[in-house]
Amino acid sequence: MSLLTVDTPSLILDETVMQRNIMRMNDQMRKLGVAFRPHLKTAKCRDVARRQLLPERPMGTVSTLKEAEYFFDDGLTDMIYAVGIAPHKLPRIQALRDKGCDIKILLDNVASAQLVSRYCLENRCSIPVLVEIDCDGHRSGIRPNDPALLDVASHLTDGAQLIGVLTHAGGSYDVHTPELLLDRARQERDGIVTAARRLRRAGHEIDIVSLGSTPTALSAEDLTGVTEVRAGVYVFFDLFQRGVGVCTSDDIAVSLLVTVIGHQPEKGWVITDGGWMALSRDRGTASQPDDCGYGLVCDVDGNLLEGLWVSGANQEHGIISNRSGAPLDPERYPIGTRLRILPNHACSTAAQHDRYVVIDGNREIRAVWPRIHGW
Amino acid sequence: MSLLTVDTPSLILDETVMQRNIMRMNDQMRKLGVAFRPHLKTAKCRDVARRQLLPERPMGTVSTLKEAEYFFDDGLTDMIYAVGIAPHKLPRIQALRDKGCDIKILLDNVASAQLVSRYCLENRCSIPVLVEIDCDGHRSGIRPNDPALLDVASHLTDGAQLIGVLTHAGGSYDVHTPELLLDRARQERDGIVTAARRLRRAGHEIDIVSLGSTPTALSAEDLTGVTEVRAGVYVFFDLFQRGVGVCTSDDIAVSLLVTVIGHQPEKGWVITDGGWMALSRDRGTASQPDDCGYGLVCDVDGNLLEGLWVSGANQEHGIISNRSGAPLDPERYPIGTRLRILPNHACSTAAQHDRYVVIDGNREIRAVWPRIHGW
Repeated sequence: MSLLTVDTPSLILDETVMQRNIMRMNDQMRKLGVAFRPHLKTAKCRDVARRQLLPERPMGTVSTLKEAEYFFDDGLTDMIYAVGIAPHKLPRIQALRDKGCDIKILLDNVASAQLVSRYCLENRCSIPVLVEIDCDGHRSGIRPNDPALLDVASHLTDGAQLIGVLTHAGGSYDVHTPELLLDRARQERDGIVTAARRLRRAGHEIDIVSLGSTPTALSAEDLTGVTEVRAGVYVFFDLFQRGVGVCTSDDIAVSLLVTVIGHQPEKGWVITDGGWMALSRDRGTASQPDDCGYGLVCDVDGNLLEGLWVSGANQEHGIISNRSGAPLDPERYPIGTRLRILPNHACSTAAQHDRYVVIDGNREIRAVWPRIHGW
Repeated sequence: MSLLTVDTPSLILDETVMQRNIMRMNDQMRKLGVAFRPHLKTAKCRDVARRQLLPERPMGTVSTLKEAEYFFDDGLTDMIYAVGIAPHKLPRIQALRDKGCDIKILLDNVASAQLVSRYCLENRCSIPVLVEIDCDGHRSGIRPNDPALLDVASHLTDGAQLIGVLTHAGGSYDVHTPELLLDRARQERDGIVTAARRLRRAGHEIDIVSLGSTPTALSAEDLTGVTEVRAGVYVFFDLFQRGVGVCTSDDIAVSLLVTVIGHQPEKGWVITDGGWMALSRDRGTASQPDDCGYGLVCDVDGNLLEGLWVSGANQEHGIISNRSGAPLDPERYPIGTRLRILPNHACSTAAQHDRYVVIDGNREIRAVWPRIHGW
């Protein structure tokens, strides 16, 4: 099978590019002298995770308990479930821990700390807990200097063991210069180190000081005081990360293979079988200076076709046109032509698929890797 | 199990509401005196399809060949694959037809007509073909009065049998007054009837004259000359259709059940475990007068909580706030509280899930229905 015969739409993963991305991040972590805990939610794929995890000390981050169970079945034991715990999920956490999975949970408020402590007491179990720190105001967590931090820590009792702090510089997604990225990386580090210091001064043992986002992980110059970094989308990259400035389009390892099924010559449109069901509804680049529509267009070999974009998407139809508005000549892309679309956001596009069609820099398909979805 | 104990995020389907939506559409079709061919791409679920299809004459529309194969396995034989055919998909069409599935295909250009004709000749098979008509310029198809229509028809030879014309008034999604909806319904009817008349005058036998979209199907007053109507999202409805004006929020049959996992008291945010992975990235209502963010918020019983919306979504986090900007009092929604989110677009939100958790107007879960995804 090759890219000219496999069914479309199909999600293509170029392993050569992915391996380069993995090496780049691993080199950066070595340079910073910090452990790396890849976020496995981007790929949700055993075959990808095996290549991301460091053999000397495999540690992973997950965003759902389904991921935790799936990667535990594949032999991974050291995991952080990096979404604030919903109390009803504790029995599933406990079931994993009872089987030997060292999964840690996250919370950022007194009520959750009390609920976890009560659960551990009633079930005579122990669950390691990280407190979530808000380093930039973008979502969850306690501000590093907020008095609530010590309050939450003091409500972790019985088997609910405070072992660390965690933050995610989601705000780094909004910037796109090296100076601002470095600034966000510093802010993330300063925030988490401050939180760890305050807890230690109050007598808590803090073993894990965890931070990360792909932009800050790749931009940080000094992570003194940090024990581990998390990042996810670096493994595939995407147009959004290109807009942030941490990769080029050559670094994007996933693309959607589509087939031309029609034209609107008067409008200069090429219609393909790759709509939002296959690309996702993600329009993340709309908020960036370089809005890429529903994706940029490459030929079947992955070479960017300058000036083209996916300007519209219905459920199973994609509309390709010139970004300039000048009409496209449909004869250049006859019915049956195969094209590859670079996605705005690798996490959301990959989530629309249950497998990766794997290539190695050419048209030949060398493997098909399944991925999971759901909760 | 009940809505208070099932895991979150979960996609909830209220069958009582769905049945009312189905009856409403069926009544409208009876009133118009036209056959109905529901689009099964919204639900992608056997259990829903069995309730949509008319027992006296089951006919369905599909958007992928995976849907076609799945619904054929469930006994449905009369289908239209309503996306312009990609030539490499013909063997899969033929395999279905060889097993007794009367699946019809769609195309809108001479090149595709030639490729299908040649395929039929070389494989000694017969495939019924509909020509796609563009009634409003929104996507694919040939304009009703375009000379290309007769050209395409004349290139359907050998086993490639022209049997009808099909259009979809996707442009009706952009309007939101009864007058404009009626206007779009008339435009859709006039377009498809014109196309059928021109082909008949040129000597072609046109058995199927098919049109449809949920807004036009519910707004049409006269479908003389039309043989069948297609519609999909009517079965669930959503906030986008509410914005178009063809349903109220009480008609929305699907919602996302989420759990409160945190608060940001200073910002007046409630954080839930329902992010874009569960809601989709669909922001369709952003283009309507009433932008609903990532969805509107109900209590666990489905009663709208006035003024609240999902203002932000990360992969597994939803942010609920007041649309007015006034801070929400987090104490009203303690950790563990369950809420239900009405989606912007039922097709895209449902696509993020592999099952429906089915209720009957109350909190009790009476069934779990699987749905398919992929191609």
